[in-house]
Amino acid sequence: MAVYTEVSDEALRAFLAEYALGELLAFRGIAEGVENSNYALKTTGGDFILTLYEKRVDPGELPYFLGLMQHLASRGLDCPLPVPARDGVALRELAGRPAAICTFLPGVWPRRIRPQHCAPLGDALAQLHAAGANFAGQRPNALGPAGWAPLLDRCRAEGDSVPPGLVAELDQALAAVLAGWPAAGPLPRGQIHADLFPDNVFFLDGPAGQPQVSGIIDFYFACTDLLAYDIAVCLNAWCFESDHSFNVTKAHALLAAYQARRPLTAAERAALPVLCRGASLRFLLTRLYDWTSTPAGALVTRKDPLEYLRKLRFFMRAEGPSAIGL
Amino acid sequence: MAVYTEVSDEALRAFLAEYALGELLAFRGIAEGVENSNYALKTTGGDFILTLYEKRVDPGELPYFLGLMQHLASRGLDCPLPVPARDGVALRELAGRPAAICTFLPGVWPRRIRPQHCAPLGDALAQLHAAGANFAGQRPNALGPAGWAPLLDRCRAEGDSVPPGLVAELDQALAAVLAGWPAAGPLPRGQIHADLFPDNVFFLDGPAGQPQVSGIIDFYFACTDLLAYDIAVCLNAWCFESDHSFNVTKAHALLAAYQARRPLTAAERAALPVLCRGASLRFLLTRLYDWTSTPAGALVTRKDPLEYLRKLRFFMRAEGPSAIGL
Repeated sequence: MAVYTEVSDEALRAFLAEYALGELLAFRGIAEGVENSNYALKTTGGDFILTLYEKRVDPGELPYFLGLMQHLASRGLDCPLPVPARDGVALRELAGRPAAICTFLPGVWPRRIRPQHCAPLGDALAQLHAAGANFAGQRPNALGPAGWAPLLDRCRAEGDSVPPGLVAELDQALAAVLAGWPAAGPLPRGQIHADLFPDNVFFLDGPAGQPQVSGIIDFYFACTDLLAYDIAVCLNAWCFESDHSFNVTKAHALLAAYQARRPLTAAERAALPVLCRGASLRFLLTRLYDWTSTPAGALVTRKDPLEYLRKLRFFMRAEGPSAIGL
Repeated sequence: MAVYTEVSDEALRAFLAEYALGELLAFRGIAEGVENSNYALKTTGGDFILTLYEKRVDPGELPYFLGLMQHLASRGLDCPLPVPARDGVALRELAGRPAAICTFLPGVWPRRIRPQHCAPLGDALAQLHAAGANFAGQRPNALGPAGWAPLLDRCRAEGDSVPPGLVAELDQALAAVLAGWPAAGPLPRGQIHADLFPDNVFFLDGPAGQPQVSGIIDFYFACTDLLAYDIAVCLNAWCFESDHSFNVTKAHALLAAYQARRPLTAAERAALPVLCRGASLRFLLTRLYDWTSTPAGALVTRKDPLEYLRKLRFFMRAEGPSAIGL
């Protein structure tokens, strides 16, 4: 469910009157995304997505997110382009929420990842990093390494109920990951997506039937951080099979395509295993927090934190770059 | 949330290959409807809705529902038209569910009902009844009067926890409604929608800004029953204010527009109050059953049964046709 806020007819009408998008033709809630309310909006001007930003998004950060999407789209990345109203302003208010209309992107996110998805993904990720290179905005990664210990502390009381011994295992892993985390400086930094899961990447079939990336969406975790951390997130999110095994063929395809646009530095290659462990921890911890703090009956699908415990264990054991596809 | 069944890439591809709809451009879950899984499907051939029929729908009844929509659309009603695949068959299977693609209808369902919506609604309902007149299919109303006593019995154990005394009040009301229910024969029967709530009726602005019905959707409660019962459902669903008061202006607009196409018979006018009570009971009982039997944590928004208790009490008290807008 991703419609938390209903929009009245009058409010929608008044909101759209500020745009030059033509007449309203359709307005349907979209059942995807979990953070914000999303509506498919059709006008005589075309198809759009209307997003109402819900409580997990800090309104003060929206100018960064929307500015980044504008910047990336203007550099040719297929991402949603915020549509300004007649007064030139894209970030507005609707139904008491910050709201924006973005362009609609064609494509379908893959329900089952095939190796053929991973090269176009790696290529698109490198494109994203290149396109973001000269963006002036900055946003610290609120869910980066500095945030993990506090997050684990908030799960301490109930975390062991998920499986017994979990908290001790996470304490150990976190200490090891933080001790091995690359120092600021040597690794290239920039604008990263930081949440590039399969449901945020649309594909269309190319001329020979091979999948091609048609759009990257949902930049609401984007931040300024190590570029290689974005790769680590993708290795976590795209390269495990449903039986929890790591598919090194997928990882290799992703990494090779990324490096065809931007070869990793020696420091990045050396750091990638620990970045992967960190990315596992990040998703494990937020899922664990949601799992232990979501009231029964809430209209949100809780994602299984144990999936990321298995990934963390894999990356904790993975020795050297070749084990992860480098 | 109205996506219960995920569709794999391969299954979707194979499914669409059986149609002549062009290339797949987009596929997004829709957050509306509660019974089935609905996806907005865009191809080079246009916009469509793909529906997977979930467990509440009896597969044996789908030919009636789809046949009725085909029949109504061919008579000019703006309703979803099932799209046949290349072999001429519209009802197919996808992801282990019966499935069909229908045409996309423009329009927006009204979040707040204004009196201006009610005349076009009444007109469209009369159109629906006229268009269904010569449809050969028949489907008994599973949620008609014969179904209410068994439904109440299934709520008996827990019903009083909603408000104390509820079950006794419903026993009394049900006995009175059944005693006053019109005998088969004198009232015109035909194909009725039976669930014509605001979220099943799309509107667009007409030339002077007045709302016009652009589409009627969700025929999965449609059945063969008293035409005037459909009016009673609409009086329940469209003519109460959020403070639970009955708005006779709305009711009058609805009834007058309906009767401009098909004047009610004397027997229908006399029966309308009891039909309204029955319609209140029908929605009260199904909501009460869902309320008492939906497990906490289920990803379904339970609708408040007490809203319909207030409506039932209003109609139980309403004396004579003028009290309900006739």
